[in-house]
Amino acid sequence: MSLIPKSHPRAKSLYIRERLVKGFDSGLVAKEGLMAHGRGETFDYLLGEKTSKHAQKAIQAAAFALVNATYPVISVNGNVAALCPREIVKLAKVTGAKIEVNLFYANEKRKKNIVKALRKAGAKEVLEINSKSSRRISGLDSARRVVDKNGIYKADVVVVPLEDGDRTIALKKAGKKIITFDLNPLSRTAKTADITIVDNVVRAINRLILECKSKKIRKTQFNNKKNLAACVLEIKKNLSRRMSHA
Amino acid sequence: MSLIPKSHPRAKSLYIRERLVKGFDSGLVAKEGLMAHGRGETFDYLLGEKTSKHAQKAIQAAAFALVNATYPVISVNGNVAALCPREIVKLAKVTGAKIEVNLFYANEKRKKNIVKALRKAGAKEVLEINSKSSRRISGLDSARRVVDKNGIYKADVVVVPLEDGDRTIALKKAGKKIITFDLNPLSRTAKTADITIVDNVVRAINRLILECKSKKIRKTQFNNKKNLAACVLEIKKNLSRRMSHA
Repeated sequence: MSLIPKSHPRAKSLYIRERLVKGFDSGLVAKEGLMAHGRGETFDYLLGEKTSKHAQKAIQAAAFALVNATYPVISVNGNVAALCPREIVKLAKVTGAKIEVNLFYANEKRKKNIVKALRKAGAKEVLEINSKSSRRISGLDSARRVVDKNGIYKADVVVVPLEDGDRTIALKKAGKKIITFDLNPLSRTAKTADITIVDNVVRAINRLILECKSKKIRKTQFNNKKNLAACVLEIKKNLSRRMSHA
Repeated sequence: MSLIPKSHPRAKSLYIRERLVKGFDSGLVAKEGLMAHGRGETFDYLLGEKTSKHAQKAIQAAAFALVNATYPVISVNGNVAALCPREIVKLAKVTGAKIEVNLFYANEKRKKNIVKALRKAGAKEVLEINSKSSRRISGLDSARRVVDKNGIYKADVVVVPLEDGDRTIALKKAGKKIITFDLNPLSRTAKTADITIVDNVVRAINRLILECKSKKIRKTQFNNKKNLAACVLEIKKNLSRRMSHA
């Protein structure tokens, strides 16, 4: 039972935080993942804790790219597994994407826990990189360049929610089309990806699933750089709104 | 040994994060403290990870208030104990302030660990609230309203680094003059305190110690509301600098 009163002005944000703490307690989330979540919380707070029209535009572009991909793969880390495992499984189902567990802080035990959580959430197949399936991508240090030969290695479109900058750059160099969820519009991941959804993954992924299911899906005009600039402008507006005379 | 390369553009921020992880591993820091640190990291990043002139102004005002206090008290929580225990002890020494361990997520074991860490850092006396010394302040739920009768309860000036909004408001209502370190210029703590130092406590506390030792210390013009607005403006400028066309 949650102790957070429903009336709390930021109750939703606190519920999400609880999921992450639970994920930490059950061995899905790393300590660094807890801090990373905090960094995201601040951006979410500055973005008004809602899906902006810019995020919605990115979601539409992402849906089109995913539905038209030849071999789409969704990369899952501890935070994503703690925050929205069911939604990841749903997104994989509607787009025919593979799910690959790919951690920044490699840890066999944690990887196993994440695979288990995804299976519990309904995943039939979860790629998890073993000695037979591991392949290397260039441009990263040894621990972090390993991907699955039936997953990211083979993918044309990769969804990397909450990803590290170095990794995103390496995947881009490997020729992948990158879709990311990143609340920081200034991050290297946000700037490197082809399509950056500047929104809380917990909110945005449901919208992405809906878009992927929609029959009206079509190619839209989308410029990631301009979209990121619009998100930064949104933050600036929110800052002014919250603090007059600034 | 740290694995962070000195050449990393954000090495200092990563070193600070390491201290917090260490503090977590040694039972000083709560899980929620790790996330709170992440929130602070984003604001620090948006503020350019340096002490602004506005922060320096607040530090000067805080030094004057502390040096002229009748009964100053420094409230220490897990994050503060992990980040700058030696500096807390130094600040207490130069201002004649008491140190009180006062946690948001009350936990006897963690309290004991924090007291030990402060003693190891050179503290002679650490108030830690026991059944004999506990007093209540009004306006807070039961677990969080307890303070030490020889500490915050008796204080005229209280330093609350990284404090919760509800607590700051309750202390203010109890007639205390509040000095805080808070990287979020929009937080309730930042807005409620008399003097808010919008800076990373690790950087700012050393400057505060220097100011308190200075013989040139004097009353300065200081308006907390205006200072906070200036900090928000600083963030907006940094956002524009990092993302042109936004």
